[in-house]
Amino acid sequence: MTVNADRALVVGVDYGTLSGRAVVVRVADGAELGSAVHEYRHAVMDRTLTAHADEPLPPEWALQVPADYVEVLTTAVPAALEAAGVDPADVVGIGTDFTACTMVPTTADGTPLCELPEFADRPHAYVKLWKHHAAQGQADRINELARSRGESWLPRYGGLISSEWQFAKGLQLLEEDREVYDATAQWVEAADWIVWQLSGSYVRNACTLGYKGIYQDGSYPSPDFLSALNPDFAGFVKDKLDGAPIGDLGSAAGRLTAQAAAWTGLPEGIAVAVGNVDAHVTAPAANAAENGQMTLIMGTSTCHVISSDTLAEVPGMCGVVDGGIVAGSFGYEAGQSGVGDIFAWFVSTGVPGAYSEAAAAAGQSLHEYLTELAAAQQVGAHGLIALDWESGNRSVLVDHELSGLILGQTLATRPEDIYRALLESTAFGTRVIVEAFVDSGVPVTELVVAGGLLKNRFLMQMYSDVTRLPLSTIVSEQGPALGSAIHAAVAAGYYDDVRAGAGAMGGKVEAAYTPNPEAADAYDRLFAEYTQLYDYFGRGGNDVMHRLKAIRREVHAGATASTAVAPLLEPTEEIA
Amino acid sequence: MTVNADRALVVGVDYGTLSGRAVVVRVADGAELGSAVHEYRHAVMDRTLTAHADEPLPPEWALQVPADYVEVLTTAVPAALEAAGVDPADVVGIGTDFTACTMVPTTADGTPLCELPEFADRPHAYVKLWKHHAAQGQADRINELARSRGESWLPRYGGLISSEWQFAKGLQLLEEDREVYDATAQWVEAADWIVWQLSGSYVRNACTLGYKGIYQDGSYPSPDFLSALNPDFAGFVKDKLDGAPIGDLGSAAGRLTAQAAAWTGLPEGIAVAVGNVDAHVTAPAANAAENGQMTLIMGTSTCHVISSDTLAEVPGMCGVVDGGIVAGSFGYEAGQSGVGDIFAWFVSTGVPGAYSEAAAAAGQSLHEYLTELAAAQQVGAHGLIALDWESGNRSVLVDHELSGLILGQTLATRPEDIYRALLESTAFGTRVIVEAFVDSGVPVTELVVAGGLLKNRFLMQMYSDVTRLPLSTIVSEQGPALGSAIHAAVAAGYYDDVRAGAGAMGGKVEAAYTPNPEAADAYDRLFAEYTQLYDYFGRGGNDVMHRLKAIRREVHAGATASTAVAPLLEPTEEIA
Repeated sequence: MTVNADRALVVGVDYGTLSGRAVVVRVADGAELGSAVHEYRHAVMDRTLTAHADEPLPPEWALQVPADYVEVLTTAVPAALEAAGVDPADVVGIGTDFTACTMVPTTADGTPLCELPEFADRPHAYVKLWKHHAAQGQADRINELARSRGESWLPRYGGLISSEWQFAKGLQLLEEDREVYDATAQWVEAADWIVWQLSGSYVRNACTLGYKGIYQDGSYPSPDFLSALNPDFAGFVKDKLDGAPIGDLGSAAGRLTAQAAAWTGLPEGIAVAVGNVDAHVTAPAANAAENGQMTLIMGTSTCHVISSDTLAEVPGMCGVVDGGIVAGSFGYEAGQSGVGDIFAWFVSTGVPGAYSEAAAAAGQSLHEYLTELAAAQQVGAHGLIALDWESGNRSVLVDHELSGLILGQTLATRPEDIYRALLESTAFGTRVIVEAFVDSGVPVTELVVAGGLLKNRFLMQMYSDVTRLPLSTIVSEQGPALGSAIHAAVAAGYYDDVRAGAGAMGGKVEAAYTPNPEAADAYDRLFAEYTQLYDYFGRGGNDVMHRLKAIRREVHAGATASTAVAPLLEPTEEIA
Repeated sequence: MTVNADRALVVGVDYGTLSGRAVVVRVADGAELGSAVHEYRHAVMDRTLTAHADEPLPPEWALQVPADYVEVLTTAVPAALEAAGVDPADVVGIGTDFTACTMVPTTADGTPLCELPEFADRPHAYVKLWKHHAAQGQADRINELARSRGESWLPRYGGLISSEWQFAKGLQLLEEDREVYDATAQWVEAADWIVWQLSGSYVRNACTLGYKGIYQDGSYPSPDFLSALNPDFAGFVKDKLDGAPIGDLGSAAGRLTAQAAAWTGLPEGIAVAVGNVDAHVTAPAANAAENGQMTLIMGTSTCHVISSDTLAEVPGMCGVVDGGIVAGSFGYEAGQSGVGDIFAWFVSTGVPGAYSEAAAAAGQSLHEYLTELAAAQQVGAHGLIALDWESGNRSVLVDHELSGLILGQTLATRPEDIYRALLESTAFGTRVIVEAFVDSGVPVTELVVAGGLLKNRFLMQMYSDVTRLPLSTIVSEQGPALGSAIHAAVAAGYYDDVRAGAGAMGGKVEAAYTPNPEAADAYDRLFAEYTQLYDYFGRGGNDVMHRLKAIRREVHAGATASTAVAPLLEPTEEIA
């Protein structure tokens, strides 16, 4: 509290899917002085309940153990302080970000139900991780009912609530384990649960509240709506969700408790920032918190976040939340379901051994090798167009029954041609999203890229060319943790708000890429083909992708006979 | 002539693209007693005129040397006789088949112009092989003019004359080397030239005359039409083509000359059958010369031939010729531009090293390995649809600006899934052709397969299921040569006609595959998707494939800038 601004430090902790990362950051300039990672002891429990008797779990489940999160505080935070070689007394605040929507059922004092002996063997008493997808049936019912009733909040989510979110998971809990549901005093986002452990205060952060909690214009879905889903669900909001104050991003949820100080080695009483989500907290880390700056967190998938003064209904967005990225602006989120995982799929299943050998001989990864070959081509030289839907389409079609397409192959088509077409398809997918925002009145003036794919310079240039936007790249390699540290500095009062903190502590290579007009013109012609196919296959012109997935499901359910002929390759010898 | 039918032998010679194959066959039952192959000394001259000073040739050219064909007679025929261990005195006839349209410019006595010293350095004096594609401009003009004049012969060729055929190649000769054109007394199909060498008689065979020579209803295109193409071309038919009698298939063009007897070691005076084409002569070799039996010669591409009593205009066929396969019936030809070469393309460019290693470990080719994996699936399990247009579409769209498509990929799609989808796409392509014939009033009651792909039992069963037709497979592994031998036996008077010869000497495994109704039902659903995509991309719904090829050509012509960024994978280090 009394630390001089020049010496003041903050700690950011990023809770990912498999591990937590702590980083020690200087408040004055955002310098990252030391970091440490701790892997969760139970990782993701998606086949068996490894925390208790290894009981098998149904398909699509994904659970975690809350105590694993606390271990990050007791191990990674002290280790980061030690790595930084700093005096812990100089630390003035701690901030955290978390995967979302990741839900913890707790007692009234925040004790996870799975830590009660009577519920230790009940899967529903554990944390439902974001990628727990076993509540699809509940999500479908929520969407159907909301559509039929014309619920005003539905368009704020691009017309579709995810099975990952608070209500679908809560309804599944009610309908599958009534005892655990009844024992649940609070249904808590892990992002808030960890802040509760640090500060002793339960505060609902504005980010997950809006994006995952269907909280819009000051209210949750009505008891009437909930009752229509299931009469016993009518009190869900009042009984399980609405029991704590709401905290703006960048504010302090409270002060570090004595116990949390003992866990972490940090001074008791320092500021604990309100919780946040990994994607959204990356925007300030990249100094991209101003309106018009669209931050793309590009990894296996891409998450697009952008702030605006305007409230608009952007077709196919994931959500818009007042103060969802920075307080005082509307925060928008959109996404592409598959990006890096499409490239990885192709590299692992569609490239011959000779290429792997050539890459190894050149000391390159196969991605690097293919990128180099692809980059040597001119725009349009491969004659291909792909649709980037191998993992479905999140924005702007919100349709996971869509699938991939590659068109234009000849007998001269090579792996690097297809690789390039796949890279291009994701750039075109981002352009569709950018245009949806712009057309809805949300300006986009700059792309700011974080995440592993920013290392591919060719891909970055392509995104700039295709969107005709300057493209900046984040400097930090631990963006979310740095973003959490910025929130800590703001919560500790060293900056007026997150934007100011981002300006001082966040960093990007400004306009590292600018559009090449000639290439942009050439890409325009391919983009016109992409959009025509996008609309034809994505908007009902030909629902072949839906039908093929339906056939596939039928077949896998055992409805169709095998056509195998054995032996396969020996002609019979009878003569007619 | 006086040889007893039990002992009588015939020789069939199949002239392929790179070699000639001779086979000695027993007239009584078609038993193949011995064979030999001779590779052409000059192979295909497609880069330089290796026969003279190695001068460079323009793109798309493909020439051959006629003397190489004679060498097959002087080497492979005696070698086949020796391999058979027979008395040459028992040979009663010789038959030949040839690639087509393959054209030889000759003097009035049949001497190739390239053998005259004054023309030895002139590329146009050599044989233009079937795949000489440098006359596309001439073909385009022929088609445009024929369409605008409503020439009655155009529908007999599915509406399009190929650049490979007699008139396009002849017009190119006129327009590019007037001296050689003027010196050309006869413009001779190689199929007829080799018969001329054997028999001393120039006889135009009914097969190439109709399919490649645009000879329909007793006449060639009119002088008026030719003059409109180029005034100097007006006399082309009268001066260069129409100078020899027409021979029905299965009849004798003449008798073996003393010189040819010396070349071959065969008895002077035996029957020499009228020339023929490799694909068409395979039908009798498979005992598939009856109306309704569609013979598929399946290799890198597929050629479909079928006879019928009915003259019909089948959309997208290659041609219909009275007596084009057997005398007395209308012979139809259709084709798929890419089949085996699509599978080969995928196997060489789209399958990872781990598969090659697993195949090698199992002692299988990669085709066999992928076939086994693909065959273990149920119909529709892969969720994919492909269009088999990587090499364009011959029948029924006659559009080589089309290209490939694969649709339905997910991150779980494996190489064997795509391989199977490609196999299926060619089966669907054949079904489209079969339906075009049936819908035009030409019945198809059985598929008879010859060519290398018949060894893939899984593929054969698929073709039977998809078309719901019984599928028979040829017995002989040297189908064209056996077919030529059958023609020789008929020409020598041992059978009344080719059908009778085929019945006695040709052979197939009758209904080796019959449709599995359950699989056929399942394929019907995929075929419905195939046809919808076929029509959308192939009949003007979306000309994206044409446009992508046009862009590709522009780019390769140098119209667009490169977008390469170097170094590609190192982020810059400046900080904003």
